[in-house]
Amino acid sequence: MNIGIIGAGQLGRMLALAGLPLGLGFRFLDPNEDAPSGQLAPLVVGAYDDPASLERLATDADLITYEFENVPVEALGTIAGLRPCFPPAEALRVSQDRLLEKELFGRLGIPTPDYRSVDSAAELRMAVAEIGLPCVLKTRRLGYDGRGQRVLRKLSDLPPAWRALGGVPLILEGFVDFDCEVSIVGARSTSGEIRAYPLVANTHRDGILRTTVAPWDGGRLGALAVRYLRRVLREFDYVGVLAIELFVQDDRLIANEMAPRVHNTGHWTIEGAATSQFENHLRAILGLPLGDTRATGYSAMVNFIGSMPERAGLLALPGVHFHDYGKEPRAGRKLGHCTVVAATAAERDKLLRRVLRLVSR
Amino acid sequence: MNIGIIGAGQLGRMLALAGLPLGLGFRFLDPNEDAPSGQLAPLVVGAYDDPASLERLATDADLITYEFENVPVEALGTIAGLRPCFPPAEALRVSQDRLLEKELFGRLGIPTPDYRSVDSAAELRMAVAEIGLPCVLKTRRLGYDGRGQRVLRKLSDLPPAWRALGGVPLILEGFVDFDCEVSIVGARSTSGEIRAYPLVANTHRDGILRTTVAPWDGGRLGALAVRYLRRVLREFDYVGVLAIELFVQDDRLIANEMAPRVHNTGHWTIEGAATSQFENHLRAILGLPLGDTRATGYSAMVNFIGSMPERAGLLALPGVHFHDYGKEPRAGRKLGHCTVVAATAAERDKLLRRVLRLVSR
Repeated sequence: MNIGIIGAGQLGRMLALAGLPLGLGFRFLDPNEDAPSGQLAPLVVGAYDDPASLERLATDADLITYEFENVPVEALGTIAGLRPCFPPAEALRVSQDRLLEKELFGRLGIPTPDYRSVDSAAELRMAVAEIGLPCVLKTRRLGYDGRGQRVLRKLSDLPPAWRALGGVPLILEGFVDFDCEVSIVGARSTSGEIRAYPLVANTHRDGILRTTVAPWDGGRLGALAVRYLRRVLREFDYVGVLAIELFVQDDRLIANEMAPRVHNTGHWTIEGAATSQFENHLRAILGLPLGDTRATGYSAMVNFIGSMPERAGLLALPGVHFHDYGKEPRAGRKLGHCTVVAATAAERDKLLRRVLRLVSR
Repeated sequence: MNIGIIGAGQLGRMLALAGLPLGLGFRFLDPNEDAPSGQLAPLVVGAYDDPASLERLATDADLITYEFENVPVEALGTIAGLRPCFPPAEALRVSQDRLLEKELFGRLGIPTPDYRSVDSAAELRMAVAEIGLPCVLKTRRLGYDGRGQRVLRKLSDLPPAWRALGGVPLILEGFVDFDCEVSIVGARSTSGEIRAYPLVANTHRDGILRTTVAPWDGGRLGALAVRYLRRVLREFDYVGVLAIELFVQDDRLIANEMAPRVHNTGHWTIEGAATSQFENHLRAILGLPLGDTRATGYSAMVNFIGSMPERAGLLALPGVHFHDYGKEPRAGRKLGHCTVVAATAAERDKLLRRVLRLVSR
């Protein structure tokens, strides 16, 4: 059986690495002919919304999925007419719009920051007056890795923020002075079976994920996050892996955003959980039983951003697993990651500090 | 960096799956155009000893290794003139001849069954008289998975065994009424660093490996096996992964044979050890620090021979990892394997029994 994947970045590549042992073949669609997944499976080079390219992908695939959340929903509609396609387009549509996403969370009883839709400078001033400073102005669509957002701390921040972002639909969100950032990743299969990974803690730098520590011991918040995840999965009759990023503030969870795909904060599961998020995404869309999502030890994941660290230094540390995505270095680009796995949290924390020293050089 | 691999079977495929995350590219040489590794990397289709094919492999690779122990030693000589090539040809030469292998073990103080070289019917009768019945007549070269051998239990077994095997150099070995079969797998890097995996217990059926249970608690035999392994690795100034299969009899280890490559009895290391044998083979030939060889839990590996079991049934069991090599089914052919990993030996044993029921159907 061949799986067609829209997007051929590192997520697609890790899906293929997980799926080849399951006896699956892979085909990719990506506008970039050097995309990382093309190194291990046939790649259709074309725009995500080019009907001819989508048809070529569908011709040689039995089942379609995507690894990139900015795939045009219309493209998914086109290809879904040719082959079964998961996750559902409606989840993609909602996740592409911060306003729809917040409204969804609200309907499902999942707390969010206070927010207002903003389409003019006047609306921005009114929204700031209602929500209060500090707050965050974001584009509703096509924002990721910290792009398309500005923190507003004083009234004089409004005009430059409006000049930078205005002209497209915006959302203003209350600034959450969080204690930490966490995420929950889980899968739902075509049979309705749901499995969730433990809650993990994340740190970002310049809006880009830097580290994930797993599992994060959030006490009762762990079960609460799973309840939130289940509500979202069921709402969409979802199939595949989905991630929700949340803030922790005063022992509360506040949803920030969701991603209808395998997620960077789930990379630790390759070596740190009984079954990886990549394998579980494939099991889910194939209707296979989902794999055990328990953590098998104490893990930490560190992203390589902009440049690759020296490989030998990292591999000399015990329990370090190296992932090079085969991409050309570029500032702000995710080029790889490593995961450390240890038998105790203290050992993991010590290893993580050593890894960070090597990666930060 | 590109690694050229002679042989594109499942071992090559698992080497590529382990090496892609390290940032490596792969190229394969195999006479079979449908070889499993060709599904994820470019494949040169040609005979192992065809100079033009070897040169094509070398042209596009920085470093050469092999995954198949019946590669002609001359072919390795040809390609070693073009690119660095590991493991060393001398280890391959010795491992291809049961007589040289036994003589090596003898020189290194590693016990073997009693043996005699046999090149005629008269020598066979004399050897049987000296070693005694039962004993095993084997071809010196090109035997694997139980092919090319006959057990002799009574004198009347000699003429048919001679008719079946005679005409090529043979070896007669004393029959070891073993308590169990074990193997030791380890790696030595270009820097001389050596790491060994724990001793594991194996069962065979019709001469083909059926199960591996890891680790095997052999008490003092574990350290003894590591000493034997180190002697062999040092003897050849070896680089890469090497396996030695041994019999356990009355609390003694008796060497049966060695393989200068990643080994079926090391497949459990993919999920059951901190670093897999495949990654450690690549680290070794690249001169990178070797990875931790400790078992991370209690594992068992079951080969799929001749036919594939139903995937969903196995994946429904917790801790089961599935490996489909993408090969056409054929009697006696290794088509895939699965590994179960559990937190305790008792849990592992229970899971193994459930897996065997599903695989034996």
